[in-house]
Amino acid sequence: MSGSSFGTLFRITTWGESHGAAIGVVIDGCPAGLSLSESDIQAFLDRRRPGQSRYTTKRSETDQVEILSGIFEGKTTGTPISLLVRNQDQRSRDYGEIASCYRPGHADYTFQNKYGFRDYRGGGRTSGRETIGRVAAGAVASALLKTLGIKLTAFSKSIGPVTVPESEYRLDEVTENPLYMPNNGLAKKAADYLNEMMEQKDSCGGIIECRVTGLPVGLGEPVFDKLDAQLSKGIMSIGAVKAVEIGDGFLAAASNGSTNNDAFAVQDGQMIKRTNHSGGVLGGISDGSELIVRAAIKPTPSIARPQSTVNIDKEEIEISIKGRHDPIIVPRAVVVVESMTALTLADLLLCNMCSRLDSIKNFYQEEKDV
Amino acid sequence: MSGSSFGTLFRITTWGESHGAAIGVVIDGCPAGLSLSESDIQAFLDRRRPGQSRYTTKRSETDQVEILSGIFEGKTTGTPISLLVRNQDQRSRDYGEIASCYRPGHADYTFQNKYGFRDYRGGGRTSGRETIGRVAAGAVASALLKTLGIKLTAFSKSIGPVTVPESEYRLDEVTENPLYMPNNGLAKKAADYLNEMMEQKDSCGGIIECRVTGLPVGLGEPVFDKLDAQLSKGIMSIGAVKAVEIGDGFLAAASNGSTNNDAFAVQDGQMIKRTNHSGGVLGGISDGSELIVRAAIKPTPSIARPQSTVNIDKEEIEISIKGRHDPIIVPRAVVVVESMTALTLADLLLCNMCSRLDSIKNFYQEEKDV
Amino acid sequence: MSGSSFGTLFRITTWGESHGAAIGVVIDGCPAGLSLSESDIQAFLDRRRPGQSRYTTKRSETDQVEILSGIFEGKTTGTPISLLVRNQDQRSRDYGEIASCYRPGHADYTFQNKYGFRDYRGGGRTSGRETIGRVAAGAVASALLKTLGIKLTAFSKSIGPVTVPESEYRLDEVTENPLYMPNNGLAKKAADYLNEMMEQKDSCGGIIECRVTGLPVGLGEPVFDKLDAQLSKGIMSIGAVKAVEIGDGFLAAASNGSTNNDAFAVQDGQMIKRTNHSGGVLGGISDGSELIVRAAIKPTPSIARPQSTVNIDKEEIEISIKGRHDPIIVPRAVVVVESMTALTLADLLLCNMCSRLDSIKNFYQEEKDV
Amino acid sequence: MSGSSFGTLFRITTWGESHGAAIGVVIDGCPAGLSLSESDIQAFLDRRRPGQSRYTTKRSETDQVEILSGIFEGKTTGTPISLLVRNQDQRSRDYGEIASCYRPGHADYTFQNKYGFRDYRGGGRTSGRETIGRVAAGAVASALLKTLGIKLTAFSKSIGPVTVPESEYRLDEVTENPLYMPNNGLAKKAADYLNEMMEQKDSCGGIIECRVTGLPVGLGEPVFDKLDAQLSKGIMSIGAVKAVEIGDGFLAAASNGSTNNDAFAVQDGQMIKRTNHSGGVLGGISDGSELIVRAAIKPTPSIARPQSTVNIDKEEIEISIKGRHDPIIVPRAVVVVESMTALTLADLLLCNMCSRLDSIKNFYQEEKDV
Repeated sequence: MSGSSFGTLFRITTWGESHGAAIGVVIDGCPAGLSLSESDIQAFLDRRRPGQSRYTTKRSETDQVEILSGIFEGKTTGTPISLLVRNQDQRSRDYGEIASCYRPGHADYTFQNKYGFRDYRGGGRTSGRETIGRVAAGAVASALLKTLGIKLTAFSKSIGPVTVPESEYRLDEVTENPLYMPNNGLAKKAADYLNEMMEQKDSCGGIIECRVTGLPVGLGEPVFDKLDAQLSKGIMSIGAVKAVEIGDGFLAAASNGSTNNDAFAVQDGQMIKRTNHSGGVLGGISDGSELIVRAAIKPTPSIARPQSTVNIDKEEIEISIKGRHDPIIVPRAVVVVESMTALTLADLLLCNMCSRLDSIKNFYQEEKDV
Repeated sequence: MSGSSFGTLFRITTWGESHGAAIGVVIDGCPAGLSLSESDIQAFLDRRRPGQSRYTTKRSETDQVEILSGIFEGKTTGTPISLLVRNQDQRSRDYGEIASCYRPGHADYTFQNKYGFRDYRGGGRTSGRETIGRVAAGAVASALLKTLGIKLTAFSKSIGPVTVPESEYRLDEVTENPLYMPNNGLAKKAADYLNEMMEQKDSCGGIIECRVTGLPVGLGEPVFDKLDAQLSKGIMSIGAVKAVEIGDGFLAAASNGSTNNDAFAVQDGQMIKRTNHSGGVLGGISDGSELIVRAAIKPTPSIARPQSTVNIDKEEIEISIKGRHDPIIVPRAVVVVESMTALTLADLLLCNMCSRLDSIKNFYQEEKDV
Repeated sequence: MSGSSFGTLFRITTWGESHGAAIGVVIDGCPAGLSLSESDIQAFLDRRRPGQSRYTTKRSETDQVEILSGIFEGKTTGTPISLLVRNQDQRSRDYGEIASCYRPGHADYTFQNKYGFRDYRGGGRTSGRETIGRVAAGAVASALLKTLGIKLTAFSKSIGPVTVPESEYRLDEVTENPLYMPNNGLAKKAADYLNEMMEQKDSCGGIIECRVTGLPVGLGEPVFDKLDAQLSKGIMSIGAVKAVEIGDGFLAAASNGSTNNDAFAVQDGQMIKRTNHSGGVLGGISDGSELIVRAAIKPTPSIARPQSTVNIDKEEIEISIKGRHDPIIVPRAVVVVESMTALTLADLLLCNMCSRLDSIKNFYQEEKDV
Repeated sequence: MSGSSFGTLFRITTWGESHGAAIGVVIDGCPAGLSLSESDIQAFLDRRRPGQSRYTTKRSETDQVEILSGIFEGKTTGTPISLLVRNQDQRSRDYGEIASCYRPGHADYTFQNKYGFRDYRGGGRTSGRETIGRVAAGAVASALLKTLGIKLTAFSKSIGPVTVPESEYRLDEVTENPLYMPNNGLAKKAADYLNEMMEQKDSCGGIIECRVTGLPVGLGEPVFDKLDAQLSKGIMSIGAVKAVEIGDGFLAAASNGSTNNDAFAVQDGQMIKRTNHSGGVLGGISDGSELIVRAAIKPTPSIARPQSTVNIDKEEIEISIKGRHDPIIVPRAVVVVESMTALTLADLLLCNMCSRLDSIKNFYQEEKDV
C-alpha cells in the first residue's frame, strides 16, 4: 500500500533506502512565493548527520541536499518540490550474518514476512537514513511556519536516567551541547552515562520534547484529523518512538478535573489560559497557547553484546551486531521530531483556511478586486 | 476540512452532534459476505451507554442502532453500511451560561474561534456522544476481525491512583465490575476513590489498555501508515486521550538495548519472541505477538466545583457546571479505545493484501479458475 | 474498497440502495456559516424525482429529505452534514427473474462477480436512486457557490436524434418543458420521438450540457486534480454516462491551432478571451470564462422488448424487463450532472485558497487582528 | 494543494518542470517481487521522446531514466520506487516575450493568477515534459499488468481529418509508422496533411484510442472510483486532452436501448458478450471484455503564425511563437494515454482484492499455513 505519504494539503512523499542510490522527498502543496534555498534545508539535515560527537556514528556521510524542482528565482512556485540526497557509501560488503538472520528489535522479520524478501543492506528502508526525507521536508515546513511567526524548539528531555525537569530548562543551551539537552550541566551527566553504556556494549533510550510558540487558534480538523491525533501519527511513525504525550500526558491520567482544567482569563485584552496542562490543544484544535509534545525513544536495538535470535532457516543462533552504532538514538532524532511537528502544523494551517464561509468570501472578493 | 473520516480501505465517516436529530456513521469498504445484524452493533453500543452504574450519567438514552444500508439477507454486500442512532433528548432548554462562556477543559473556545460560532447544546460535535459512530463502526470491524481469529480485549488499567499491575490481570473479571477493570478487588478500591471524588465535586482520570491476540504478521504500511502510527492517530483522536503508548512505551525510554530487545526463538516449529517489550510491533508492522496499546485519559472536565473562566464578552467570571456528569470518563471509553483499535486493524488487514506480487497473482489466478 | 467518497476538502460520502431502508449522504468539510434549509435541498431532489411527466416512471416516491446534523440555527456549523431520504417502497416482491439472470446493459454480472453476491432488488446500489445522495449534496455545494456569485445551468442538449444547436439556446425555457431542453419547440419534437420509442418498447440516449458563469480564475490543482480531470471523474461516475467533453471536446480534435486557440484581449480593463473553445479551462485551471462540460448518456438499458441473456446457471435465456421504466435517462439526470459539477467546483474552490503564501499570510494576519 | 498524486494503493507522485534540474516520479505501493530494470522503463520513455520523426521536435533530449530506490537484486521490494530523468537543456536564454505575455491556448495566464507568479521557461510544469513522470510510472504499471496477462495497445485513431475506421485496424502496423496509426496507408495520408500544416505554420488535433485485453471481471470501485471514472480523470488530466469516451461514447447517446445493450451469451462454457458497445465496463466495473477508451487531443497551441494576445501590463499585442514545435501532439501522447490507462488499472487491480470476505480469509489462511 502507498504508506509513504504524510499530510493532505501540504503532503510529503518520502523514498529511499540505506544503501540504494539516493534518498529523497517530494513536497506537494507548498504555497507559492516562499523563499527557499538549499542552505535552509542543509541546516536541518546537518542536525541529524552522523559524526557530530562521539555518541554518534563515525560514518562519513555528508548528506548534501539537491533541489530538483519547485523553486524558481529563489521562491517556491506552487509545484512539487523534489529534494535528493545521494548515498555516499554503497560499496558491496559482506552482509552475510544480517542477511540470513532476524536481528532482535529490528524489522528484519516483519519485512521479510510482509514483502516476501527484503533489502538487508543496512536496514534498507527501515534504516535511520529514511528520516532524511522527513527532515528535508521539515525544513521546508519550518520555513513556511517561520513566515507566520511560528517557532519550534525540540530537545532531549531525558537521556537514559538523566532527565531535565521543566524548572531547569535553559532552551538557549540546547544547541550548546552535543546531546541537545536544555541544560549543559545535566548534559554532562548524561554524557557520562553514555560512556558507561558504550563500555558495556549496551545502549539506552530517552525522551524528546518539542514546544511550539506563536500558533494561531484553530489548527486541527475534528474528529479524526485533530491536531493531537495527526501529531501523534507523525511522531509515532518515526522508527524508534514507542509513546507520545500531549501536554501533561500520562500525568493527566493521574490528576483531577479541578487541577487538570486550565482556567481561562483575560490579560492585556487577550484571552489566555492560566495554566497549560492541555499542552496547547483543546478538542483537537490549537488553543493559542504553547504546543507541547513528547516522544519516548527506545534504546538503539543494534548492540555489540551477543543476543539470541533465529536465522532464516528457523535455527536458534547467537549474534553480535558489528560496526559502530550510536549508543543512543535520541540526539539525532531531535530534529526528526521537530520536523514531523512542523509538517503536521503546516498541513493543518492550510486546512484551517477553509473552515468559515466569511474567510472564503473574503478571499474571493479580494481576488476579484485585484 | 473533511476530518470526519478514518481509514483508507476500510473507511468510516462519522457525523452528528449531541443535541441534533441523530448520530451515525457510514462504513465504506467493508468486504462483502460478512454476517452482520443490529444486535452485533447494539452489544458494542451498550458498553458505552450511560446509566450502567452510579459512576456514569443517569440520562435516559437507549441509543438504539438502525442499519440503513449495506446489508442484504443478513450479510454485507460490499456497499456502504450506514448506521443511525436517534438522539432521544432534544428538547430545548436554557443553555444560557454554557452558551455565553468558555468552559475550562472543553473545546468551546477553540470551536468558537475556528468556525466563527458553535452549537453549544451539550457540547455539540465535541460531546462524548460523538463516539457513538466510532463504536458502531468498531462493532463491524470487530466482527470482521473475529472471522479471522483476531480477538480484542480492552479494560481500565488505572482509575485515579488505583492501578492493576500486569501480574494481577484477571481478564475474565473485566466484564464483572462496572469499571471494566481486570481485577474485581482493585475495582472495589477504585469505586471507593470515585465515591470520594463525587463527594468532592471533582473528577479523575485513568489509563485504558487494549490487547489483541491472533494477529498475523504484516499489518502496517511503512513509513507513515505504520500500525503503531495509525493506532496512535485513531486513539489520540478520542476526545479525552492525552497520551498513547505501544508495548513498554515510556518505560522503553528508560531501559537499555540489552533488556528492551525481544529475543527471537523457535517454539513448536514456530518463530516466537521470548519477551514482548515491543508490544507486537516491529518497524511499524505487526510481528505476530500480542498487540499492546495504552491510552491516558484526562479527568472529566465538567465538574460541579466553581471554576474561573471568561465569557464571550471577554469578562472573567466564575462558573459551576450543572447537571449530572460522570466523575470519570475511563469506563465508558474502554469500548471506544477497543473500537479505534479494531478499525485500525481492519483497515491495515485489507491494505496488507496487496504487498506481494505472488499473492496478487494467486488471487487473480483463482478468480480465473472459478 | 472505499469508493463512495468524492472530493478532498468538500467531501461527500454517499450510501444506500434502491430497496434498502433509506438513501443518504454525508457532506464533510462544508464551511461554517452557510445558510441552509431542507427546502434548499428538496428543490434539487424534486428535479430528479420520478413522475414529473409521462416520460418518467410513475412510482410514488416523494423523496423527502431530512437534515440529521451539521446545521444549527439555520446555518452550517463546519461539522458533517448528514442528509437522509427514506425509501418508500420496500415491500417484498417476486424478483425471481431479475434475481436469477444478468440483465444486458446492467451491472448485475459485474457486481455478482466482484462481490460474490448482489442485492438484486431494483438494482441495489446500481439503481438510479443512488444519485439521490449526489443531488442532495449538490444542492449544498450549489448554495455555497451561489454565495460567491457562481451560477450553474444544466440542460438536455440532445434527446435521441433531436439536438438543440448552440445558436438556438434559450436557457430561460429549460424549466418550461418536462425534458429540460433549452428550446421549447425542439423539446416538442423530442417528445414525439420519445412517444415513438415507448410504442416500440425501446429507449434512447442523449446529451446533457452544463454551463457555469461567475467562476474565479484559479480552480484546479495540477497535474492530476485539474478542474477538467476532477469534473470528468465526477460526471463519468454517474451510472449512464459514456463520454465527457470540455469546451469544444471532440471538435477540438478535428480543428487547427489557429482556430482552436482562444485569443486574449482586454475589455473594460478586464482580461477576456475572444472565443471560448477551451470551455473555460486552461492547463486544468479555470480561466475566468464560462465553464462548459457535456456528458453523453446511454439509452435506458431496461426495455420491455425481449433480449438475449444468460442466467446464473450459465444458460442462455430470453428476458423482457417488466415494470414501468423511463424511455430516457437524460431529463432526470440533468440535475445529477449539475450536482457533480457543483461538487467538483466547491471542492476546488476550497483547495485553491492555499495556493499562495500571501493569501495565507493575510488570512492569519486578519485572524490575529480580530 | 497536493494535486500531483494519482491512485490510492498504486499511487504515483510526479514532479519537475521543463527547465528545472530534473523530472521524476515516485511510485508508492507497487507490490514486492516484480522484476524491473531501467530498460523496461526506458522503452516507454523512448516512445514519447522528441526527434523520432520530422513531425516531432528536434531538441536533443535523451531522457535517460535512473532508478534511485525500491529495487533490490532486480526486483521491487515493496518500498517506493523513485525514478529520475535529468533535463539536458537548461542554459539560460532570452525568454523575454514568453515571460511577459500570455500565450493563447497555454496555461500562462491561469498559472500566473493562481500562484502569483510562474516559471515561464518552456512552460514550466505545464510543459509536455511533465508527462515523463507519468510515462516512467506507466512502464512500471504495465510490467505489473503484463505478469497478470493484461495487454494494452494504444494508437492514433485520427490525425486531423484522417481517421482509421475500426474495420481497417491493423494493430501490428502501429509501431511501423512514426504516427503510431493502426494502418500504414492512412498514416501516409496523415503525414501529407501534417506537411501541409507545417507549411501553413499551423497545427492540428486528433484522437487516441487505447484497448486492453486480458482484464479480469471486477476492477472499479463504485460509486465514485469506478473504472471509467478513474480512467477519465487520469486521461483528462493529460495536458491537451479535451474529451474522453468509453466504448461507443457519444455514439451511445444517439443510439437505442435495443441496439446499445450488449447481449450476454455462453461460449465454450464461458460467459461472453455478443457485442461490446459498453467498452468493457458495466456499472463502473470491468466486465471481462475488451476495455476501449478514446481521448480527443487538441491541436498544438504553439504555432508560428501571429496571434493576438495580452501582455502582463494588460496591453493587447501580437505574438509569433518561436522555436520548433510539433505540428501535432497526438503521436507522442499515445504512450501517455496508455500509461494513464495502465496506472488506473494497476491501482484498481489492487483495490479489487479486498472486495470479498472469502478472498480475505483465503489470503490469511494461506499466510498461516506457510
